[in-house]
Amino acid sequence: MKHIQTVKPLKLQDVHIQDTFWSEYIELVRDVVVPYQWEALNDRVPDAEPSHAIRNFQIAAGETEGEFYGMVFQDSDVAKWLEAVGYLLETKPDPELERVADEVVDLIARAQRSDGYINTFYTLKEPGKEWTNLCECHELYCAGHLIEAAVAYYHATGKTKILDVACRFADYIDSVFGPEPGKIQGYDGHQEIELALMKLYHATGKKSYLQLTRFFLEERGKEPNFFQLEYEKRGKTHHWPTLDMIADRAYNQSHLPIREQDSAEGHAVRLVYMAAGIADVAAETEDQGLLEACRKLWKNIVTRRLYITGGIGSMAHGEAFSLDYDLPNDTVYAETCASIGLIFFAHRMLQIEAKSEYADVLERALYNTVVAGMAKDGKHFFYVNPLEVWPDACGKNHIYDHVKPVRQGWFGCACCPPNVARLLASLGQYIYSVNSRTVYTHLYVGGKANISMDGSNVTIGQRTNFPWEGEVTLEIETESPASFTLALRLPSWSDGAEISVNGQKLDITGSIVDGYARIDREWKSGDQIRLTLSMPVLRMKGHPLLRSTIGKTALQRGPFVYCLEEADNGKHLHQIKLPRDSQPEAAFEPHLLGGMNVIRLAAERIAADDWGMELYKANQSEYTRPFQATFIPYYAWANRGVGEMTVWVKE
Amino acid sequence: MKHIQTVKPLKLQDVHIQDTFWSEYIELVRDVVVPYQWEALNDRVPDAEPSHAIRNFQIAAGETEGEFYGMVFQDSDVAKWLEAVGYLLETKPDPELERVADEVVDLIARAQRSDGYINTFYTLKEPGKEWTNLCECHELYCAGHLIEAAVAYYHATGKTKILDVACRFADYIDSVFGPEPGKIQGYDGHQEIELALMKLYHATGKKSYLQLTRFFLEERGKEPNFFQLEYEKRGKTHHWPTLDMIADRAYNQSHLPIREQDSAEGHAVRLVYMAAGIADVAAETEDQGLLEACRKLWKNIVTRRLYITGGIGSMAHGEAFSLDYDLPNDTVYAETCASIGLIFFAHRMLQIEAKSEYADVLERALYNTVVAGMAKDGKHFFYVNPLEVWPDACGKNHIYDHVKPVRQGWFGCACCPPNVARLLASLGQYIYSVNSRTVYTHLYVGGKANISMDGSNVTIGQRTNFPWEGEVTLEIETESPASFTLALRLPSWSDGAEISVNGQKLDITGSIVDGYARIDREWKSGDQIRLTLSMPVLRMKGHPLLRSTIGKTALQRGPFVYCLEEADNGKHLHQIKLPRDSQPEAAFEPHLLGGMNVIRLAAERIAADDWGMELYKANQSEYTRPFQATFIPYYAWANRGVGEMTVWVKE
Repeated sequence: MKHIQTVKPLKLQDVHIQDTFWSEYIELVRDVVVPYQWEALNDRVPDAEPSHAIRNFQIAAGETEGEFYGMVFQDSDVAKWLEAVGYLLETKPDPELERVADEVVDLIARAQRSDGYINTFYTLKEPGKEWTNLCECHELYCAGHLIEAAVAYYHATGKTKILDVACRFADYIDSVFGPEPGKIQGYDGHQEIELALMKLYHATGKKSYLQLTRFFLEERGKEPNFFQLEYEKRGKTHHWPTLDMIADRAYNQSHLPIREQDSAEGHAVRLVYMAAGIADVAAETEDQGLLEACRKLWKNIVTRRLYITGGIGSMAHGEAFSLDYDLPNDTVYAETCASIGLIFFAHRMLQIEAKSEYADVLERALYNTVVAGMAKDGKHFFYVNPLEVWPDACGKNHIYDHVKPVRQGWFGCACCPPNVARLLASLGQYIYSVNSRTVYTHLYVGGKANISMDGSNVTIGQRTNFPWEGEVTLEIETESPASFTLALRLPSWSDGAEISVNGQKLDITGSIVDGYARIDREWKSGDQIRLTLSMPVLRMKGHPLLRSTIGKTALQRGPFVYCLEEADNGKHLHQIKLPRDSQPEAAFEPHLLGGMNVIRLAAERIAADDWGMELYKANQSEYTRPFQATFIPYYAWANRGVGEMTVWVKE
Repeated sequence: MKHIQTVKPLKLQDVHIQDTFWSEYIELVRDVVVPYQWEALNDRVPDAEPSHAIRNFQIAAGETEGEFYGMVFQDSDVAKWLEAVGYLLETKPDPELERVADEVVDLIARAQRSDGYINTFYTLKEPGKEWTNLCECHELYCAGHLIEAAVAYYHATGKTKILDVACRFADYIDSVFGPEPGKIQGYDGHQEIELALMKLYHATGKKSYLQLTRFFLEERGKEPNFFQLEYEKRGKTHHWPTLDMIADRAYNQSHLPIREQDSAEGHAVRLVYMAAGIADVAAETEDQGLLEACRKLWKNIVTRRLYITGGIGSMAHGEAFSLDYDLPNDTVYAETCASIGLIFFAHRMLQIEAKSEYADVLERALYNTVVAGMAKDGKHFFYVNPLEVWPDACGKNHIYDHVKPVRQGWFGCACCPPNVARLLASLGQYIYSVNSRTVYTHLYVGGKANISMDGSNVTIGQRTNFPWEGEVTLEIETESPASFTLALRLPSWSDGAEISVNGQKLDITGSIVDGYARIDREWKSGDQIRLTLSMPVLRMKGHPLLRSTIGKTALQRGPFVYCLEEADNGKHLHQIKLPRDSQPEAAFEPHLLGGMNVIRLAAERIAADDWGMELYKANQSEYTRPFQATFIPYYAWANRGVGEMTVWVKE
């Protein structure tokens, strides 16, 4: 077995973000999203559907009367909130928030059964039926989110109470599941426990959590199919009668053992959560076969099933992948959570092999689909992220029933908003990786990071107007000179990078490995590295097998994919064509939606006014009028009322 | 009230078809479809889902034991079969077929209740619940088909037994429905009784049938909504729980009174059946308001909601219209029955105002969607008629769940096959119209028609290789010279027509009215009219507001719309582009699927082989290779195995 090299991300507490683009979002999570979610969890948001999530725990703890209400996975909303709080506290103390979170921790602890079990749906609604419908009822999924929250909160506060709760729960799960006779040889319909247990393993060092994760992963997809067996055992009842989760095995990736899964099938969030878990175990156990499984799924996604916006999941049915090269722009699903899961997967792969292709995809998902998922008020969210919207057709043609032309307040199934919150609150984890000899810079985000290298405490500062401009200044502070390699990612969207150290330009030609420019030297305080990434407007083309992009182009500059909106370009965006030789120009508009680069270029518009009434005409020559097209970054779409939008434009 | 001029179609028995294109289809209906359907109705087709339709009648007649089986409208399959048999017998005697049909007539008569009621679903399955769920249960729809069958069979055979059955049923319905107190002020969820009662009125002259039709039409859409009222009255039960037929009032066109319906909404078949019924009453009663209602719906369909193939209904959900200019090629529904209904509507409008635009649409639907609906084995049918198919995605991306890439054997809901049969068996009705002074020729179909004009028995013969060539020779035979106008339709797909009489070219410039060239003279036996319609290959463009056709072109020649198939052009049809100046050439291929014109032209194919693995690339120039594209008529698609197909091609 070949040794798997890994690097590690920095601890969140060691990364301080102060960034042109991201600081505002992170403060939004702190000041608006998390407080708002807290109100929502407590059913105090007027006009919103009640969450009942806190109340479910209170009832389960025997402290109030009532019945369970909500989705079968309602508990996970509390856990995701607590996890986000953990990340926020880890980066900035907030005694009042911590007091509230401590109360939630206490509540969860009180709702825990003496055997360690926690799940308010089963405790309140179906006692005695625990572990009888893993396929549909998210029991281990909820456990996973609780464990992730526990680890985050423990890291942030050093308090062990919730970690103990999580360990007791995990130990109980370990007593229920496993290869031994008398245990359940099964796994959850929605992967999540896997990556959570790996975090718990890393936090506690307890080997049984690693073993249990491996069991869940390796058991998946074996014959006879576990979900079929438990379905028959429980008397063929369904929790979600309209979705056939049992017959459609690819939906929950139970159609094949994970090592035999060559393509990304089924529910997109589940697939990428699973892949993240496999990557965790591969890194930890140095299992090349598991790593190979990750690489196969990765390759299939990024070369055949990934939207240019970093979205995945081509169809609403099953919130799922469909088939290779099937990426419709309008009926797409591209759930925000799925892109977050893709980031989890990419981030883990990046720790196993520091290749910039992983960071490229991570960045693509982050700067486009994920940020697009949340409005700048922190209270409105996209669950589905289309690349083309014709609002008139939404609600009229039912193939668009899942597509909303504006962000929505809160969802009956509220998975995306807290997922965005926990990702943004933990953004600091994604910027750097280190091993004993190298500091990798994956993302260019202003701020400072504290790193222990070569026996010294080193601080690396980034100053940049990225993502609007491609210049980044990195500054080193160190107790004493330290020798290490600084590996700077050269993103694929840049066609030229220059690096100078203390004013002296480096020849980086021979020092680029896997998309990172490696600068190996002894660093001392005050060393200044200047990275200049060219940031041209790219005219992107899709693979010729993509039916939805052929003959079209999309604009990208830096990490941002751009789109046309009706607000800038009028109705009927399908009539706009971009001449091949038209020169796009980027310009910063400080007053537009908080400031952003727009791209303008001379375009053409197919003339419609003198066509007349006929629906079809013979031998009609199509003529166009000159038109100035204005593109804005995709993430900012749908902030100026209801209107058309498209990423791909005819060429 | 302005007088509404009407012409009348010829009786079927007066038209004898002997045509290059259609004779084969009509013989197919006679020799295969109708016998095969008879076997199906009697559950004698191996491997097919049982119909049980005949058996339901036998049980209802008390002649055998058993339970009702099938759709709530299963009876209509028997009726449509009998109607088709009527048309076949009217054009060609067949004693054995007539004997079988007489037995069916006897069976229906024996299943009729003493009060006149006939419906095996209610009689067998829900006795006592008659007329409690008009919205969902097709009770009057089935009655309508029975009445249509009765009229057809009566016209064919002169036998009154089934006509009496129908009249007793209609009289009973008249005793149940109407404006009078104690009667039901309602109407059916699926329009059909309206046009059926009008046929019965014309066959019997009984005014009450006209009045009842008018009542059904005018009652529709009044407030409070009848379907809501009956829903509450019956205790809010559903027959089709998954379709919300009660809440979605536009689905069954009960959202507005018919005179206020400005656009074609809801289930497409219901809309055009309703429109046909309105046109019938408008013609009969000279009600300009009703005619205006027809014109509004017609205009909305043909200028905003009609596929170039004559298909209607843009979405699978509700088999329905969606919104103006929304005509997706791949997720389209375009049910075969809907195009048949559109032909009914167009044909009625054509009798009210002899304008060639009605015949153009009728011809478009007939030569494309309707013929495409049936395979040349007479045993396989399309229910849904897409304009673009990527078979790999069918079954994988669920937005295509309704789309089949090959014709299917028989359907659980078997409405389309018998509808195709009855239309083709009655094709003779659609060729001519007459009034006292004029003979209109709407379609060019070889054969002979017997017409009484100016006191003489006149025979008009057509000899033509249409639709492959645009030359038609018409020959007059008459007992004695007769003065009348022969009005020859000049189809919109022809950019030039020449007419000569007895070898002498006419100057027709001044004699064209509403798309018909009018030749007014005294005709004598042996007169020969030669019509030469230019039949160029047309490069069709869609209205600039159509998102699905912009930047694309479709080829049409004569009445046929053409398509690209994988069988001729290889996979990945989306990579094919047609240069604007490329000259198409039509050539007859006698051995291809029974003989047809194909169109070939120099095209380009976007090169894909050296692209590599990346899904998206920056600043990649798209280059093409020369390619010879081969188009076949749309009706003939999917006869050479599973493959891609597209009507619209990039330009």
